[in-house]
Amino acid sequence: MGKKIATVITDMFEDVEYTSPADAFKEAGHEVVTIEKEKGKEVTGKNKEATVTIDYGIDEVNPSDFDALFIPGGFSPDQLRADDRFVKFTKHFMDEKKPVFAICHGPQLLITAKTLEGRDATGYKSIQVDMEYAGANVADKEVVVCQNQLVTSRQPDDIPAFNRESLNVLA
Amino acid sequence: MGKKIATVITDMFEDVEYTSPADAFKEAGHEVVTIEKEKGKEVTGKNKEATVTIDYGIDEVNPSDFDALFIPGGFSPDQLRADDRFVKFTKHFMDEKKPVFAICHGPQLLITAKTLEGRDATGYKSIQVDMEYAGANVADKEVVVCQNQLVTSRQPDDIPAFNRESLNVLA
Repeated sequence: MGKKIATVITDMFEDVEYTSPADAFKEAGHEVVTIEKEKGKEVTGKNKEATVTIDYGIDEVNPSDFDALFIPGGFSPDQLRADDRFVKFTKHFMDEKKPVFAICHGPQLLITAKTLEGRDATGYKSIQVDMEYAGANVADKEVVVCQNQLVTSRQPDDIPAFNRESLNVLA
Repeated sequence: MGKKIATVITDMFEDVEYTSPADAFKEAGHEVVTIEKEKGKEVTGKNKEATVTIDYGIDEVNPSDFDALFIPGGFSPDQLRADDRFVKFTKHFMDEKKPVFAICHGPQLLITAKTLEGRDATGYKSIQVDMEYAGANVADKEVVVCQNQLVTSRQPDDIPAFNRESLNVLA
């Protein structure tokens, strides 16, 4: 059974941190739904290698309609968390223990949603101290899976492990 | 007496958060010295409105040779804090209670240097929860001055207050 994966994304995402997991999810039969402020907008990765057309504006979606959350990295998550609607949306998945996949700077949204306390996780080097302060048990590993629910990775090199463990949690 | 102000900066800084304070510091007779990984490199703001030629590479400078530290915002501070040399450089100014001026995302370097515990400060909306977790007393104000040493502001709109209070601390 394919799952419906909400993907929160805006400009300056780390290109391959969206394209590779999204392709892997789709190949496994899951649905990837992109969400930003505005439906139909085109957002562009920071390396200008990928452009994504937004499926839904944040005001048009209800997190209850999705099975999982995917947060690609780059400078996208920091911009999204300046908007309380994306923080609230993120919090739903963590509170309900639905699968959450966050890579690189993705965990920044989890910090702002105050959902990392006591959780095992990793993230891009620059945010690891932020994550520790937020109460996470941070490991400098290619992928960390916490309670078969939260999958986090550090950087593009970690994508194969990130995709593998994310698909395992969805299975 | 003019002061020597170390400025840590890299690509995608918030253009006006460098140019306006730097101009104000220079007009008041202070010296602004730009520091990145490599001397002579040109770094460009995220709005492509400003380009800065780097005066010194981080390995060529000793923080003891400077009177104050200036950290412009944008996506520059997050990139710099992924390099331990910039974190250590920043820590010197906080430990020695030398003047530190950080705007927008600038306080991210202060978090990673673990120097915000118990300090009054502000920052860009997206990093305010990070700062609270790091132990700062965060106020949503245009400028916060802590112990006549640490000056922080939130965003470009706050620049007049940021410049005014920074110059007061240097006086």
